[in-house]
Amino acid sequence: MQEFELIRSIFQSSVMANTEGRNDILLGIGDDCAQVQIPEGQTLVFSMDTMVEGRHFPFDADPLDIGYRAVATCVSDLAAMGAKPAFFTLGLTMPESDPQWLAAFAEGMAELAEPIGLLLVGGDTTKGPLTITLQVHGYVEKEQTPRRSQAQVGDDIYVTGTLGDAAAAVPIVTGEMHISAARFDYFYDRFWRPSPRLIAGMALKRVVHSMLDVSDGLAQDLQHITTASGVGAKIRLADLPVSDELRDWQPDSAYTLALTGGDDYELCFTAPKSAREEIQLITQTLHLPCTIIGEITESGFEVEGFQGELGGWQHF
Amino acid sequence: MQEFELIRSIFQSSVMANTEGRNDILLGIGDDCAQVQIPEGQTLVFSMDTMVEGRHFPFDADPLDIGYRAVATCVSDLAAMGAKPAFFTLGLTMPESDPQWLAAFAEGMAELAEPIGLLLVGGDTTKGPLTITLQVHGYVEKEQTPRRSQAQVGDDIYVTGTLGDAAAAVPIVTGEMHISAARFDYFYDRFWRPSPRLIAGMALKRVVHSMLDVSDGLAQDLQHITTASGVGAKIRLADLPVSDELRDWQPDSAYTLALTGGDDYELCFTAPKSAREEIQLITQTLHLPCTIIGEITESGFEVEGFQGELGGWQHF
Repeated sequence: MQEFELIRSIFQSSVMANTEGRNDILLGIGDDCAQVQIPEGQTLVFSMDTMVEGRHFPFDADPLDIGYRAVATCVSDLAAMGAKPAFFTLGLTMPESDPQWLAAFAEGMAELAEPIGLLLVGGDTTKGPLTITLQVHGYVEKEQTPRRSQAQVGDDIYVTGTLGDAAAAVPIVTGEMHISAARFDYFYDRFWRPSPRLIAGMALKRVVHSMLDVSDGLAQDLQHITTASGVGAKIRLADLPVSDELRDWQPDSAYTLALTGGDDYELCFTAPKSAREEIQLITQTLHLPCTIIGEITESGFEVEGFQGELGGWQHF
Repeated sequence: MQEFELIRSIFQSSVMANTEGRNDILLGIGDDCAQVQIPEGQTLVFSMDTMVEGRHFPFDADPLDIGYRAVATCVSDLAAMGAKPAFFTLGLTMPESDPQWLAAFAEGMAELAEPIGLLLVGGDTTKGPLTITLQVHGYVEKEQTPRRSQAQVGDDIYVTGTLGDAAAAVPIVTGEMHISAARFDYFYDRFWRPSPRLIAGMALKRVVHSMLDVSDGLAQDLQHITTASGVGAKIRLADLPVSDELRDWQPDSAYTLALTGGDDYELCFTAPKSAREEIQLITQTLHLPCTIIGEITESGFEVEGFQGELGGWQHF
């Protein structure tokens, strides 16, 4: 079998490529194009993300982790649109065809993709430095799509889960820092296994004014909302949700990490004060911690209790 | 301005990102996801292609050419599905942010994308070795989609245009071979400026049984049809369409290049003999040369007049 056929067969035989029972997928892997019939009343939303070895994840990482995290981080964009995951494509560039690596990578992707109904329907495999491009696609009703540009003055600003753990984990996953085994396991997972807030995004989409996922750091991402909406924001450093594990380990920098560190893939959204009860009901039903961290203002960007430079992930 | 913002502004300000008058594009560049409303009665078809510098195109090539060819080769997959081009996403990995390079690259993409109505609606830009991933999307009626798997015994096998020029051009564009200026100009264009057969694909889709674009070499690609359809093929080497320029330059190898060389992006399709008149009418109306090169058989793969190894582009 040629290398190319071997690679294709690894992906094609994965559970995540099984189109059985999926009436929307008319053609999957194997023709010039894939073909999809979008369900009636739905629009298509999609997002493309590229991950480069040595920049977005460490060299020689576990392919199972790489696969899982690639899907998780990309699917998080669907959560921010309140969309239901539908299918994805994979552009994989790798230095050599390594069946064992590929099988583990596919297994990692499938571990998240299969249970959420995200089907692999196509892509391309090429030879070169390890680079992974995913395009994930979801369905959402036209009128129920949260956008970055709809925040309104007086809105509460919310964040799901906790922030800062993934940024704190970076020196651990790169091997620059060594810590106790228990702490290692917790933070390793917080970097490699983010939980995209899909159900929360779908449940909240009707209630929120604006929403996005926190990938580059809260301060930077929240400013994407204020800029797109033409408003300002005032948040309180002490109100940022921080895990007990992070506070125990790094009491001095925990809140700064929560403010500026990326890679947590929680949702940040704004909603009118009148929606507080409904939002509480939704997030309690989902057992998802959700914290009000501040409020949308007329202009400016203020972080009460923070002195320092507001940074964030630099894409370039 | 941050590098990242600069890159985004170059793409966002291009004519190919202008969503004005496009009711199908609800959200373009700038949110967590792009959002599209598929026109009524249409299905979505899409294809992802990755191009790596030094493998799919030479190092230090003209960014204008790289941009044009990236769109052309990827859009060719839409032609093979008889689809109307609609929108695309771009995953661009490059070693450093170079505004001049980016502007020329965007101009090359727009040169083809804009006139065919292919809108840039999103993507990702990252730092790393030059790697370009495009996903192109088109619309086609569910019942009128040519597939690779529908060839029938007795079908004529057709090829549009001429074959072999792009493969002959490779040593020229890599700089390994030097030839006269006139010849250089012709073959340089044949590699860098393929003409995806979009109109032909749309016009032929109702008439053909199966269709694909010739990207990896006729012999290899035609076998994708015969394998998927569970049939065989018999073609005649002497009937392959070859340009006068290639025959003049390389009389001995012209037909072998036409059989095994890739990168021409012509359409290969099969159709019942009863459709000959209609196909002639369509291709004459489009002023597109179209040649019958053989016939679909029960089994096997035979090339009359050819002795040698049947190769083709190796993806890995």
